[in-house]
This record gives sequence, structure tokens and C-alpha cells, in this order.
Amino acid sequence: MSKALTRRIKELEEEWGKLRSELKERSQAGEDSELTSNPSTHENTDSKPDVNTSSCKKGKKVAKERPFDFSAHPRRHVALRLAYLGWSYQGFAVQDNTDNTVEARLFEALLKTRLIQDRQSSNYHRCGRTDKGVSAFSQVITIDLRSTQFCGGLGISVPEHVDVSIKNKATGSEVPYVKMLNRVLPQDIRILDWSPAAEGFSARFDCKSRTYRYYFPRGSLDVTLMAEAAKRYEGTHDFRNLCKMDVGNGVLQFERTILSASVKPVQPQDISSTGPYDVFIFEIKGLAFLYHQVRCMMALLLLIGQKLEDPELIDKLMDVQSNPRKPQYSMAVDYPLVLHDCHFQGLAWEQDIEEVSHVLSELHQHWTQSTVRSHVLHGMIQGLEAAGGVSSNACCLVEGSKQRNYRPLLERPCCESLESRINHFVKRGRLEREEGENGGETVHRGKKSKHSHSSPSLPVSSEMSSPKQSTDEKAED
Amino acid sequence: MSKALTRRIKELEEEWGKLRSELKERSQAGEDSELTSNPSTHENTDSKPDVNTSSCKKGKKVAKERPFDFSAHPRRHVALRLAYLGWSYQGFAVQDNTDNTVEARLFEALLKTRLIQDRQSSNYHRCGRTDKGVSAFSQVITIDLRSTQFCGGLGISVPEHVDVSIKNKATGSEVPYVKMLNRVLPQDIRILDWSPAAEGFSARFDCKSRTYRYYFPRGSLDVTLMAEAAKRYEGTHDFRNLCKMDVGNGVLQFERTILSASVKPVQPQDISSTGPYDVFIFEIKGLAFLYHQVRCMMALLLLIGQKLEDPELIDKLMDVQSNPRKPQYSMAVDYPLVLHDCHFQGLAWEQDIEEVSHVLSELHQHWTQSTVRSHVLHGMIQGLEAAGGVSSNACCLVEGSKQRNYRPLLERPCCESLESRINHFVKRGRLEREEGENGGETVHRGKKSKHSHSSPSLPVSSEMSSPKQSTDEKAED
Repeated sequence: MSKALTRRIKELEEEWGKLRSELKERSQAGEDSELTSNPSTHENTDSKPDVNTSSCKKGKKVAKERPFDFSAHPRRHVALRLAYLGWSYQGFAVQDNTDNTVEARLFEALLKTRLIQDRQSSNYHRCGRTDKGVSAFSQVITIDLRSTQFCGGLGISVPEHVDVSIKNKATGSEVPYVKMLNRVLPQDIRILDWSPAAEGFSARFDCKSRTYRYYFPRGSLDVTLMAEAAKRYEGTHDFRNLCKMDVGNGVLQFERTILSASVKPVQPQDISSTGPYDVFIFEIKGLAFLYHQVRCMMALLLLIGQKLEDPELIDKLMDVQSNPRKPQYSMAVDYPLVLHDCHFQGLAWEQDIEEVSHVLSELHQHWTQSTVRSHVLHGMIQGLEAAGGVSSNACCLVEGSKQRNYRPLLERPCCESLESRINHFVKRGRLEREEGENGGETVHRGKKSKHSHSSPSLPVSSEMSSPKQSTDEKAED
Repeated sequence: MSKALTRRIKELEEEWGKLRSELKERSQAGEDSELTSNPSTHENTDSKPDVNTSSCKKGKKVAKERPFDFSAHPRRHVALRLAYLGWSYQGFAVQDNTDNTVEARLFEALLKTRLIQDRQSSNYHRCGRTDKGVSAFSQVITIDLRSTQFCGGLGISVPEHVDVSIKNKATGSEVPYVKMLNRVLPQDIRILDWSPAAEGFSARFDCKSRTYRYYFPRGSLDVTLMAEAAKRYEGTHDFRNLCKMDVGNGVLQFERTILSASVKPVQPQDISSTGPYDVFIFEIKGLAFLYHQVRCMMALLLLIGQKLEDPELIDKLMDVQSNPRKPQYSMAVDYPLVLHDCHFQGLAWEQDIEEVSHVLSELHQHWTQSTVRSHVLHGMIQGLEAAGGVSSNACCLVEGSKQRNYRPLLERPCCESLESRINHFVKRGRLEREEGENGGETVHRGKKSKHSHSSPSLPVSSEMSSPKQSTDEKAED
């Protein structure tokens, strides 16, 4: 009997051993593949390298190996101007649910170059968030960076008790911020220039205006009608029906001022032409923008350009008295949107022409590739059209699938009203109602939401008075 | 004692159970991720689908499950016209070292749709090989496909002893080859149309001429000079210094006839303009082309356009008496090259307008993406140039890295001569020397090289007489 049992034990122990080693093999074989596998499997395997944070980890590791004494260096408050191609990123701002953001790459570079000790202490502000897939030619951030200027200067804070010898060694020239960062940043993120900034100057709160561009081909769109319609956006309006209401992050005020809105061809001569392959730009300049505002504005222009809606629709949607709730519609796709410019006062950009030229030739190569590809495709299209192919020329810049028969916007079901959204978040304790001094009611930010901004969150008012346009928790993405 | 043993057994059995289920979980979780894991792990795990051959395997598997009786169906000799974007493929023709070819995807589709039983028996010929990264708007193949035409017709062979009942059931309309294949092909490979073909008609041997296009931006190139230089290619010349000599595959004859060669703007109006961002086409039509011929021809034009070489260089290199050996130079990059057209006689293309329009709208979407991206990049370039950036505008269409100081082509080291290459392969038994009837010497294909073509390899002559231009083992890629 006991013999039989012992044998059974032997068998089981062998079985057990086999499975163990097989398991081990699997998890090793799976290692790189798991980077793309469902997150659930990630928790178990700590050994596995994470494609996104690796270089960041490296940066930190190096720092551990030979500790760097930040306190021995002056700090300088500066503004950096970034350009990036957002097509392969999950957006600009760091997020909880992904590491694949432009900001994540940026801070990896800042840490690796020891220009900052950590994000928390870096006094960091960004001008605008850009959403997944959105690019920027002129994103601006303000931050405190390590400096060489022991003798002071704009934005410089010199550490106390630094012995004279070092002070005397102090070189005239500042750290080559642009070169240094571009050497470690991914090729699709480039620092263009930097400027010293006065203490307290904020890329977010001191930004005077922001300009976005949305590129699109004419196709069968009536661009003249679109240009005319775009003008209706100019001025100060309530855009709650032309954005994603971000009440949960304390955005309760939807009045925004648009300084200019235009639809124009990328090349001037295209005004005369009527070719469906001409490319146009919807360019919009405003003090500040709401979450998804530009892509909603563009979506309406596309409907108008297709003659599916009248230009009057824009005025109707901005009249929140008559239309307090946003009708359901899909916004325009992300990849043609670019944060093209941000306007500031009191910055003196220092440009390294050599570096700019380097960036230029990189852009040229990238441009050549996509341009050649677009013409290869165009050649095929022309070939098929010549062969009698009927091109629908349908606009493919709106999210979601096309409906067979179009339903007018104002006849569609509507989203929740602002008030019911506010109530929702007040109930959940993320917003707090208060009696305002002038009898009006104010709603304050309650518990800080996990998605909210790193910068101090000011109370925002649900009254139409005192619009704080540049203090949104979320700018346009 | 036995009690203890029993307990131990219980423990082990539990352990064993746990591991089993864990293993099961892992392999499920790993399944899709393993698609991207390193091939080494593939051998062990048969359960896992292979990203490249999956549909092919599936096809076969299905076929096993319910055997398909090909002998009960007529076969039809047809020509198919394909368009594909070659950018993400390792070339058109199937290769030993990779499965990522257009042909591999094509045969997966032909098997899956049961239009053929296997490649070997399909009487398959292709018009031209295109190399890694090269696209085609008009690649033509000939092949025998399953047909519905029991009552015969051009290219039809009806199986013997098919009972009358089936014959009578025979529908009037042919199998919808184009629709059927496009439904299972990857989106970047499309069948455009098909034609019945007479028995023995070959896409390879009956092709009258081939037209290639190479797209490039003007940049700082002197396109007028390039257009002038391109004309020198016209006529019949020896191109051994403007191709990759493929002696190993029995290509020993390098005289080719170019019917036309031109450099022209993609849009007519661009002739007037001088903008560096205008796009041009080098279009060349010839009876047949050698391996890498077009990309070598383009490389010379780019040198001439940059004023690094004179147009006379072309004549000098085609004069193999004075220059029997090819000087070392890099060819032009692959992705701007397109096999734009193939000319045949005796084909009547049957086009499914609906299907063509479907392909057109797919192309439109793809075009919109690359065009918008190219203009986003152009917008950034203009911004930097306005800011004083000096763009090198250097031509980035030649392979390899740029040399600081240019070395004239005819002063560079040369490659092996044709004769020494022939000797090399004769020694290795892949070529055989023979006394030609008219005293001249002929070299025949010896052992078939593993890279060689599936189609019958004719003997090729090293004499300049009787050029067999359309029978190369390798056409241009």
C-alpha cells in the first residue's frame, strides 16, 4: 500500500516539476510579447521591461549610481517651446492609464539631462493640453531648470552658501537647453527655443492667446460656405454645445472669446482652383479653449461644407437659452489638428539657428516621405478615375461610421444638461455648492479629481460673470 | 505513515491542479500577444496562430475539414491586374527568407477562396517583380482559376466526365474574381480587374512594355537639367552599369530598350512654379528592365539635378567599351517607385465599376491621411523657415549616408566586371559555358539557383545579338 502511495508521490512530484519549468519558460518567452498583451498579465511579471518608461528608469538609475547635487547649482525659471508630431502619442499631458504621452517623454529627457531633480519640485506649467493624436508646432511650458549663471540673471535663483571659487568659475554661457534635450528626446518631439522667464511667469496663466490649425482636403466640400460659417465663431460665445463638458474637473464656465476664425487654402493660389485635392486650413485663434472645442467646431463646419446643415446652425448652438443641451454629434478626427501658436508677452526666445536648421532637415525628410506617399496614392486615384471609377469623395474626417440617411443635428437626442451634470458631481462630493456674495450661487471644486491638473485649481464660477478663460482645468485637446 | 503519504498526495495534487490552470490562463492571455513575440518561441507552441500564414493555414485547414473537389469545376486561364502599396512588404515575389511578400498574401487569398488548389498547379506567371518597399498600380499576373463556365469560353478548360445535370446548372456569370479576392486580401493589396486569357498567354512573356514612375520633390534640384538628362536613356543601350548585375540568376545580357523617359511635374501648372515643395515624376517606359535598373537611373538623375555630375555621365556609363565596370554608387531609395503600367495585347479587362469605386474610396481615405500629415509637416517647416531656420533642402532620396566632400562617379572604385562574375558562377557550377554555333560562346543556366524564378528559365546569351528582353530571370525591382 505505502509502496503504491510512494510511487504516486514520485509521479506527482515529477508532473509538478515539469509544469513548474514549463511555466517558467512560458513567462520568459512571453516577455517582450507581453508588452503588447492585455494589461491583466502585467501585474504578475515585474521583471518585464516596460517599453515606455525604460529610458526614464535608466535616467533615474544613473542618478542613483552617482548622486547629483542639485543644491550646488543655480535654478532658472525658463519657458521652452516644443514642436511634436502627436500621431503616435496618447496626448500631451501625463495620464494615469498610459505612459505613452509627450509629457512623459519630456520629463524623461529633463531627468536624464539632470536639468530637474523631479517633476514635483520643477515648478512646471504647460500652455495647453493636446489630445491623443494632436500635434503642436508651438507648445510652451514654463519650468525651473538647472543653470550655470551663478552671477544671477532673469529667473535665476542662486543657492546660498556657494563658495566664491565656484562663483568665479561660472561660465558666461547658459546650459545649452535646446541641444541637450533634443539629443535625448524622441525624433518626433523637438525643443525649438527657450526664453528666460520672470519668477512666477506661467505658460498656462500668462498665455495671451492660442492658435489652432485643422488641415483638410477640399474633396466635395463647399469651402466658401465653410469660410463664411467660420466667421460666426468669432467673438465671445457660450460653447457648451461645442465641446465636451468637463464638469468633473471643475469646468463650469463655457463662455470663450474667439479672436479670429478662418478657412483658407494652404497655398494662396488655390483660391482660384476648385480641385478636390487642394488642402485647406481651418485656423482659429482664441484666448483659451474648452475640451474638444476645436474638433467640435470643425465637425459643424464639415456638416455645413457638405450642405447637410445651414451656417445658422452655429448661432443656434451658441444660443444656450434656446438650446441648453448639446445634441449628439461626432467630432472631427484628431490627426489633422495642430496647436500652431501660443502668444505671450515678456518672453525673449533664444534660438540656436544651427539647432533649428537641424530640426528643419529632419522635418524635410519626414515631409518628403509623407508627400511622396500622398502622390503615389494620388497617382493611383487618378488612374482609377480615368478608368471610369466613380469616387464618392466623401468626407472621411468625422469620427464614427457614416449614417445612410442624415438626421439634422437639432432633431437628434441631446446630452445631459450642465445643471444635471453639476448635480451629479455635487452628489458625488467632487463639487461643492456655496452661497455667492452677490446672492448668486457659486460652485467650488471639491475633492480633487484624479484627472485634474498639477497646477493650483482656482475656484470656478457657474455664473456667466467673471470668465476665467485661461484658468480652465482643461484647455482644448 | 500511509496517512502522511495520503496527505502529501493531496497536497501535490492540489499544487498540480493550480499550476495546470495557471498554465492554461497564461497561454490564453498570451495568445494575441504571442503574435508579436520572437519567432524562436513559435516552434514549441503549435496552438498559437502565426500572424503571417494564419489565413493561409486556415484556408488549408478548412479545406481538410470538407474536401473541395477541384476536378469537378472548369478552370479558366485569366489575367489579374493588382494594385498594392509595397511600403510594408519585403517585395512582390515570394522569398525564402521572409513570408512578408505581396505574392504570399495573394496566394493565401487564392487558396482561401478555393480559386486554385495550389500554386504549383496554377500555371502562374507574373509581369514584373517589384523590390522591397516598391508599389504597383498595375502589376499583372496570369493564372488558372476555378470557373463556372461549363459551356466553355476563352481560356476555359472543362473537366471530362462532368454529368449533364451540372452542365445545365451552369450559371451564365463567371466567378466574381475581383470581389471575392478583395474581400480576403489585406487592404493595401487590391485586385483592380481581370481578363480572360488565351491558353499559353503569359503575364511575363507577353508583356509588351512596362512603365515605372518615381516620385520626388523638387527641393534644390535642377529639374530642367534632369529632364534633359533623362532623354539620354531613350533607345537601346547596355545598362550593366545602371543595374545590379544578377549573373547568378543567369542574367548575362544587359541591353535594354527604353521607349520613353521623362521628368515632369505631377501637376501641369507646376512647370511655371519653382517652389522646392513641388513634386515631380521620373516616368520611364521600356520593354523590360534589369534588377534595380530604375533606381540606378534615378540615382544618376539625382546627382545631375544636384549639379554634382554632368548629364554626359549617362552616356559615359552606357558606353561599356570605355567603362566596362560599374563604379560604386548608391541607388535611389525604394518607396517612391511604382510599377505604374504594364502593356499587353489580347486582353479585355472586365471591370466591376462598383468594386473600383470601393477601392477608390479606400484610396481616398489613405490619401487624406498622408496628405494631411504632409501639410502638417509643411506648416512646421514654413514656421521654422520664417523664424530664420536655414533649410539645407538636401536631397534625401539616395541610400546610405551623405559624404562631406563629393567624389566624382568615374573616379570611384569599380565593381567586378561581367566576365569575372560569369567565371565566378561557372566555377561554382551555376553556369555552363558552351561553344555557340556561330563560333561565339554561349553561357547557359546551370544548377537552378534557389533565388531563381518559378517560370521556365530559357538559356540566355552573353553575346549582344538576340536580346531576350522580356525573359530575364529578374525584372526591375
